[in-house]
Amino acid sequence: MKPTHIEHIGIAVKNLEDAIVYYESILGTKCYAIEEVKDQKVKTAFFKLGDTKIELLESTEADGPIGKFIEKRGEGIHHIAFAVKNLEERLKEAEEKGIRLIDQKPRKGAEGLDIAFLHPKSTHGVLTELCEDKNQE
Amino acid sequence: MKPTHIEHIGIAVKNLEDAIVYYESILGTKCYAIEEVKDQKVKTAFFKLGDTKIELLESTEADGPIGKFIEKRGEGIHHIAFAVKNLEERLKEAEEKGIRLIDQKPRKGAEGLDIAFLHPKSTHGVLTELCEDKNQE
Repeated sequence: MKPTHIEHIGIAVKNLEDAIVYYESILGTKCYAIEEVKDQKVKTAFFKLGDTKIELLESTEADGPIGKFIEKRGEGIHHIAFAVKNLEERLKEAEEKGIRLIDQKPRKGAEGLDIAFLHPKSTHGVLTELCEDKNQE
Repeated sequence: MKPTHIEHIGIAVKNLEDAIVYYESILGTKCYAIEEVKDQKVKTAFFKLGDTKIELLESTEADGPIGKFIEKRGEGIHHIAFAVKNLEERLKEAEEKGIRLIDQKPRKGAEGLDIAFLHPKSTHGVLTELCEDKNQE
């Protein structure tokens, strides 16, 4: 698959404002963007650290994926996202390797990225996102 | 705290050999080191991706921290580690901010790094490691 770097780490939080205060304090850098992703029922906040971002995720509805995650196991790291090129090809490659896909095709995620998730049952328990920034190409 | 980058992401796995095969396949890069950390009751395997490492952790004993983690919630992301300078000062700073420390003082972790953990109760559920590579200074 050859990702170039870890694009971001997604962290599920109960309250975005509280979590932003904490991360601004520990990272020593300001949250640079807040964005709602309606089809995922989340509000997100981003921090940049080296070549990776921290993406905080607060559920906007209790039945959203982040709401359910927090209900089941509390706040914590939710997923890891690898930056790849040619995402559609990477998804085919993943399928050929026997990895179960959550998204058969790329869809739009936060920050205008094309994204797709791999199922944690195929990835040793790690919800894994592949993403491509076509804006940078 | 001003970490320079995410030093690594720690992932708890049941079987290191199987997980290495998977990560070599998805990352397109070879595992560059395997190391046992006896006081943590783990065997670790490392991959490099951009400025961050993936650290796979297999418990060598069922009652070790990784063994207990997997028993409770299965394989998955276990912790995130931020690279900092002057780790002892950073720990004092964390304590002044009201963050609960697991390690009051730095101890030795994998790869010869000085490490210390912050308690997830103070970090919005994320087991957080601070580490300093004194070998590079």
